[in-house]
Amino acid sequence: MNKRLLILADGALSVFGAKTAVCLLRFRAQDVVAVLDREHAGRRACDVLPVPAEASIVATVDEALEYRPDTLVIGIAPPGGQLPAEWREIIRRCIQAGVHIVSGLHTFLGDDPEFAQLAAAHGVTLADLRRPPEDQPIASRRARETRARRVLTVGTDCNVGKMFATFELAAAARERGVRHRLVATGQTGMMIEGSGLTIDRIPADFVAGWVERLVLEADADPAPKLILVEGQGSLLHPSYSGVTLALLHGALPDAMVLVHHAGRDRMRYVDQPIPPLRDWVRRYEEILAPLHVGKVVGIAVNPHGLSPSEARSAIARIEDETGLPAVDVATEGAGRLLEAVLA
Amino acid sequence: MNKRLLILADGALSVFGAKTAVCLLRFRAQDVVAVLDREHAGRRACDVLPVPAEASIVATVDEALEYRPDTLVIGIAPPGGQLPAEWREIIRRCIQAGVHIVSGLHTFLGDDPEFAQLAAAHGVTLADLRRPPEDQPIASRRARETRARRVLTVGTDCNVGKMFATFELAAAARERGVRHRLVATGQTGMMIEGSGLTIDRIPADFVAGWVERLVLEADADPAPKLILVEGQGSLLHPSYSGVTLALLHGALPDAMVLVHHAGRDRMRYVDQPIPPLRDWVRRYEEILAPLHVGKVVGIAVNPHGLSPSEARSAIARIEDETGLPAVDVATEGAGRLLEAVLA
Repeated sequence: MNKRLLILADGALSVFGAKTAVCLLRFRAQDVVAVLDREHAGRRACDVLPVPAEASIVATVDEALEYRPDTLVIGIAPPGGQLPAEWREIIRRCIQAGVHIVSGLHTFLGDDPEFAQLAAAHGVTLADLRRPPEDQPIASRRARETRARRVLTVGTDCNVGKMFATFELAAAARERGVRHRLVATGQTGMMIEGSGLTIDRIPADFVAGWVERLVLEADADPAPKLILVEGQGSLLHPSYSGVTLALLHGALPDAMVLVHHAGRDRMRYVDQPIPPLRDWVRRYEEILAPLHVGKVVGIAVNPHGLSPSEARSAIARIEDETGLPAVDVATEGAGRLLEAVLA
Repeated sequence: MNKRLLILADGALSVFGAKTAVCLLRFRAQDVVAVLDREHAGRRACDVLPVPAEASIVATVDEALEYRPDTLVIGIAPPGGQLPAEWREIIRRCIQAGVHIVSGLHTFLGDDPEFAQLAAAHGVTLADLRRPPEDQPIASRRARETRARRVLTVGTDCNVGKMFATFELAAAARERGVRHRLVATGQTGMMIEGSGLTIDRIPADFVAGWVERLVLEADADPAPKLILVEGQGSLLHPSYSGVTLALLHGALPDAMVLVHHAGRDRMRYVDQPIPPLRDWVRRYEEILAPLHVGKVVGIAVNPHGLSPSEARSAIARIEDETGLPAVDVATEGAGRLLEAVLA
């Protein structure tokens, strides 16, 4: 399983509408056999999105099943995580066709009596990536013990591209032969990496403890030079700041890469201005400093919505304002950020 | 039920060892009929602890049952929250005697097959205060809408006395006829207040959303003048900082009371120095400011372990350092802090 993916992205196949779909199509391009999306049906993924995947986009579950997927991936991540009612039939049909289900939704498919029964009858697994684990570790500042250098992506808002930047850093490390491990902390990251934990679903007291444990486990032999931790939320986003700080204090990064959407001046979901970048650099470093000295070493700029020339100007302004290397990792790759991380 | 309390504090009956026991004995003194604690058996609660309760301390569950308790309260809150094995027999005997159980442990008694079966057979309820609710609200900065002034206790460490200070503020408001409501956010606060939510057990993404909802609900008619929110953890404690920040960004306090243990220079459970108080004042205000302007208006000083004259000097030094009123609320009451909150 998990080698022939069908992505469910119904009606939400855009860079910000279906983060899971976009990232799987970029970072696991070779494993995606089809995308279910009525709006863009008949085209290929690479025609609609900035991704290498040539997977076909289809309108119906029957068409999708012709591509012999082994796994249906629920490719959407709304704030509340609820399962849209109209998708039940798609999931039902996939299970009946023997297709495993991987879900990052807050509502657990395995707890749905109909799906659970159907899955058992057809020998299919329902993987709810957000289901919290049983253990209840408490963080105690032990992440400092890793031999590897710890790197965390942090953001000026949620949904700016922290996961994306993390996987681009991993790609850059791979290209240069730098031994690394990636700690996925969200459902999409887990789908790409094949390991990790969806930390936003863990009871609040244990988030930092779980992050600490994952980071320490990533330091296993052969020792990596880098541990790249996928960031979550933003230190000033009222909905998610608690998760962000737990992640920061659990991972205790030596280096942080700040991710910013250059087109955005107000936070998503709330009416709140995004402070200047220098302010963010100072805030992330200061809230970490009493526990561990870690620095913001570069900015990953997401220029979505800007023209190429606007993007270039924005990046130049950001480098000027922060004195740090600023990179659009989607087009340039994360090589320069990796150098800053290793410096 | 819940009017004749038996407190289980086995071997941990000290100000810092059994926070739940101490706070129930102080703030619900009239409702406690006995305390189960081998070490101090034979004495009264008020002889062992700075509390008004005259409840007897007994060594065995048989002695305890002679006081006809209607509810056993598990009076301990260790970091991991696990149920000590030797307490199973005490809980078993209480259930068999028809005594309800209220537990703030992370391990849910209701999920224990033996306890669940026994409780059903004896018509007894097992209230697991840390069991997370079903709803999944996301915070969106709406706490600002309350007509009441919002007050949050914040700390320089965990286990310094934030809940204690919150209930003392409520007592001061009651004495002065200031309409107020208290939002309990931990199991002990819930036991005292009879409402609230144990936020550290909620999935991390929903902590701020739950706090926001509780604060908005507390603003119900007749409109209170103050909403006092019980603080949790500390912004710089690696184990709990995520909960602290979610609480801050969910409640969006107009005023904060900083709680500090004057005898303490390193954080509990981790080897980490506690920064100076002025630094804390600035940190709490700065991490709140982009969402809402709220100020630290006073310091609740916990002088445990200091002599009275040492305590007086410490408090004077703190007032000098911060320029804010500093008060040992356990001896002086919270009247001066309440004035600062209302100013």
